[in-house]
Amino acid sequence: PEDQGALKLEYKGQFQLNHRDTGGGSDDDESVSEFNFRRNRVALMGAYGKHFGLYVQTEFNEDNNITGFNVTDGDNEDFQLLDAVMRFKYNDAVNFWLGKYKYSFTRENLEACEMPLTLDRSLLIRAPLVDEGTRDKGVTLWGNLFDQKFQYRLDAMNGRNDSASAPDSAFRYGARAHVTLLDPENGHGYKGTYLGEKKVLTIGGAYQMEKDVAYSNYTAAGIGSESVDYKAWTADLFFEYPVDGVGTFTVSGAYADYDLDDAYKNDNLADLYDTGIMGINGEKNGGYVKIGYMLPNLPLQFFARSESWSLSNYNGFYDQEVDWYGGGFNYYFRGQDLKLTMELSQADFDKEGKKVFGGKTYNTEDFTTVTAQLQVIF
Amino acid sequence: PEDQGALKLEYKGQFQLNHRDTGGGSDDDESVSEFNFRRNRVALMGAYGKHFGLYVQTEFNEDNNITGFNVTDGDNEDFQLLDAVMRFKYNDAVNFWLGKYKYSFTRENLEACEMPLTLDRSLLIRAPLVDEGTRDKGVTLWGNLFDQKFQYRLDAMNGRNDSASAPDSAFRYGARAHVTLLDPENGHGYKGTYLGEKKVLTIGGAYQMEKDVAYSNYTAAGIGSESVDYKAWTADLFFEYPVDGVGTFTVSGAYADYDLDDAYKNDNLADLYDTGIMGINGEKNGGYVKIGYMLPNLPLQFFARSESWSLSNYNGFYDQEVDWYGGGFNYYFRGQDLKLTMELSQADFDKEGKKVFGGKTYNTEDFTTVTAQLQVIF
Amino acid sequence: PEDQGALKLEYKGQFQLNHRDTGGGSDDDESVSEFNFRRNRVALMGAYGKHFGLYVQTEFNEDNNITGFNVTDGDNEDFQLLDAVMRFKYNDAVNFWLGKYKYSFTRENLEACEMPLTLDRSLLIRAPLVDEGTRDKGVTLWGNLFDQKFQYRLDAMNGRNDSASAPDSAFRYGARAHVTLLDPENGHGYKGTYLGEKKVLTIGGAYQMEKDVAYSNYTAAGIGSESVDYKAWTADLFFEYPVDGVGTFTVSGAYADYDLDDAYKNDNLADLYDTGIMGINGEKNGGYVKIGYMLPNLPLQFFARSESWSLSNYNGFYDQEVDWYGGGFNYYFRGQDLKLTMELSQADFDKEGKKVFGGKTYNTEDFTTVTAQLQVIF
Repeated sequence: PEDQGALKLEYKGQFQLNHRDTGGGSDDDESVSEFNFRRNRVALMGAYGKHFGLYVQTEFNEDNNITGFNVTDGDNEDFQLLDAVMRFKYNDAVNFWLGKYKYSFTRENLEACEMPLTLDRSLLIRAPLVDEGTRDKGVTLWGNLFDQKFQYRLDAMNGRNDSASAPDSAFRYGARAHVTLLDPENGHGYKGTYLGEKKVLTIGGAYQMEKDVAYSNYTAAGIGSESVDYKAWTADLFFEYPVDGVGTFTVSGAYADYDLDDAYKNDNLADLYDTGIMGINGEKNGGYVKIGYMLPNLPLQFFARSESWSLSNYNGFYDQEVDWYGGGFNYYFRGQDLKLTMELSQADFDKEGKKVFGGKTYNTEDFTTVTAQLQVIF
Repeated sequence: PEDQGALKLEYKGQFQLNHRDTGGGSDDDESVSEFNFRRNRVALMGAYGKHFGLYVQTEFNEDNNITGFNVTDGDNEDFQLLDAVMRFKYNDAVNFWLGKYKYSFTRENLEACEMPLTLDRSLLIRAPLVDEGTRDKGVTLWGNLFDQKFQYRLDAMNGRNDSASAPDSAFRYGARAHVTLLDPENGHGYKGTYLGEKKVLTIGGAYQMEKDVAYSNYTAAGIGSESVDYKAWTADLFFEYPVDGVGTFTVSGAYADYDLDDAYKNDNLADLYDTGIMGINGEKNGGYVKIGYMLPNLPLQFFARSESWSLSNYNGFYDQEVDWYGGGFNYYFRGQDLKLTMELSQADFDKEGKKVFGGKTYNTEDFTTVTAQLQVIF
Repeated sequence: PEDQGALKLEYKGQFQLNHRDTGGGSDDDESVSEFNFRRNRVALMGAYGKHFGLYVQTEFNEDNNITGFNVTDGDNEDFQLLDAVMRFKYNDAVNFWLGKYKYSFTRENLEACEMPLTLDRSLLIRAPLVDEGTRDKGVTLWGNLFDQKFQYRLDAMNGRNDSASAPDSAFRYGARAHVTLLDPENGHGYKGTYLGEKKVLTIGGAYQMEKDVAYSNYTAAGIGSESVDYKAWTADLFFEYPVDGVGTFTVSGAYADYDLDDAYKNDNLADLYDTGIMGINGEKNGGYVKIGYMLPNLPLQFFARSESWSLSNYNGFYDQEVDWYGGGFNYYFRGQDLKLTMELSQADFDKEGKKVFGGKTYNTEDFTTVTAQLQVIF
């Protein structure tokens, strides 16, 4: 209602045509093509004066076949409130947020989903054992100090929720800080590129921990007696510099280490592959480098990224290594509000082939993906 | 946001009281009554200038017992983004749409859901093996030519998505054209009636095809070695004419043929009734005729419809024939924004009774439905 | 759209930090803490002139571990349209509503979810065998008479929907009336407190019945031959009085009896615990008393509540008695639009311990809950 502070609506869509060279058909070795949405969101924003604001965002995931690492039968439709955060701002140095929103850990997860440099963030950067993947529920104290050259964040969030297979329902605590030397990055969210409008050099780091997050000695029944803690750290750098008449250059990189006390070495886990201790979002370490160049007189930006990750176990292979390469371009018809992106990417596994693990057969194969994406923000 | 083109909100609801004479109780032979929503939607519309628009629509299906052909236990609640389409208009002859929206095939599926002539569209008109039933994801090029007397549409859409039981993930291609001789029908959507405000005579036709959509020799495991293609065609006519002082007359009819190369003749399909090759939305052909008469001085419109369909297999009976008759009236309190509809309908099967198929027992019985519906658009 | 009557948007969120002293971990005996939303809603309101209005409300339930009576693994995420009601008002004495909204029975269920006196309504007050718990679908005629001193409501709603385990799909009929002696309560919804802005004394009562709602002799297959009816009655009192310079006093109480003809005494029901005849929302009777005191010069309100219920069977124990006590405070930063609530509560069962029932083991234990909640309405 008018007298209480207005709500504004926004739509954000990313519609894709995807082609993957393998994973389709009844033997999972045919190529697959698919039209789909990567993001399909309606956001509500509101403010009461300058001290209190609200941000609520819905997300609708269609059934889709081509996912980051797999081609599936696609029964994964889901409509949810992705974000719902109450934002109190005492001043620039003291903000208190509560609700559901992105947890404070890697820079790339905190980069706005509609403003990455490359097609999307890393497929491998999500933290282990957090219900929502990229978001969590809880509270955050954060702010900018020293003329906005320094930013701190302190999180207390759910982390892994209680379940029969969790020893405890301890909270996940996190801290993140950055130093930003040229034009400041002073918000809760980062961007993957400022399109030549800012000169930015930011160096950041973060730490997360949660006690008693899983068992190191799961029995086949999915419980155990000895618990492990979750500990993770990350460091990142972002540099973007527009040079008059030459164009805008972007370089960004990060490393992250997610540790679960080697709980994956327990033999019983073969039957419990989906505990989240192993796989894409389990115990792992790795990082990315991404670079960009945007033309001076045309809203065209070329990009490339390279990633390398060590996974505790993926599809039954222990100590799997994955390299992921991608390159392409963004064409900004109306800035981020109407953008065309093309990307060609390749995932390269150190160990390939079929593997039987816990009675199931998994197939690991290198794959290539081509994506054309149109982004619209209203 | 204001400076980017505003978003408008709209609500569209159809609340029904339904009565079905059979299908209820523990023996499925009791009558059933139910209050429910047939449609319950919130739509978002936006435009940037005159060349680019957006249409997004959510749909919430409640659990409901009385469905088109069955009375169920009703655990079918679903909230989804039904439409999300980005619309580029170069000029009236060249439109490019992409996203999720109604595929270009039968006229009746393309008639606006809130502006049919009878209570609703045909229950039997949906195309086979398309994930969304009435919508699909992809791209369409369409436009009006020759002083809006001719319209063309060219679709490339997902059709059947990839799955273990699909030989291939080929796209579904479609083409539709119409000739409209009096006042033009020049949009992407049609209406079932113009309430006497237009004189319309439109003749249309369409073709759809998708290669390798299913197997002709499914094994019990749900895969096979020989694939079949999907091919379908339809033809339709719509005529509406207001006569001064007498009223408005409407006549509309269509025929459609959906072909899957007789894949339903494979003996193993008895165990695979839900592959979508058989049943209401499998291989079939048939059509409808509907007529209407609206009074000259009162917003009251009487209607009737008759349909006849041949289904490859329904509830275990091969080559089932269904006739469906209905009649009733619309009273337009405020045009389509506040409308009361009453309809009495009957479905008449050529083969009735219990049938064991693939180890399950199906019950096929003629049924009668009475519906009172209030439609509200805000 | 503008010319049809505008739609207004509203967001209502209740974000909680909950702590429960038992129910967590692999043995269900550890304490649990969780951040979560109790309510997370977007509402749409519209009106055409003064005779016709619309109210539509979405609700998103996150996965949550700590529920009213249990700690679960939390796979209960759900996004739905909670309310969608078309409201016709002929005059203050004759209102006709249709759609999905709160059924007319207990006062506390009809108190606005964002305006209770205590943290929330009773956990035990929901009627049995109604699909939606607090809402139902159907029609209601209601109005105020005698200078708004008297209000009547007549409901015809779905009640229990048809299912294989229901003998019949009869409607649920309800009637409610109240007498309100000081400032009138004249809306369809009540409030749990008027924050000292009104003097209110209201006495109400209601009756509900639905024929053939379940079987008294369920076989193990979940059907039977003899049906029972549902009958329920309730009586309630609400008194709130602001005293100048002293503060505002609130007293409210209710009793409700939900009867299913002792159908729970059927021995086969042990295997059918989830039929809804037993448990929290089955056959039961009980009530609550709640009191409040709000300070005269500070928006701080203290409250306490006490409940006592007899359940036909809970977790395998027949004739279980539950007492529930809670107390705490509301601090109204901006009335109900920004409110902090703290509550400490305890549930006390007459019979405790593990019980095997229908082959499953249930654990019944007293528990204590501490909740801090921030409520935001935009």
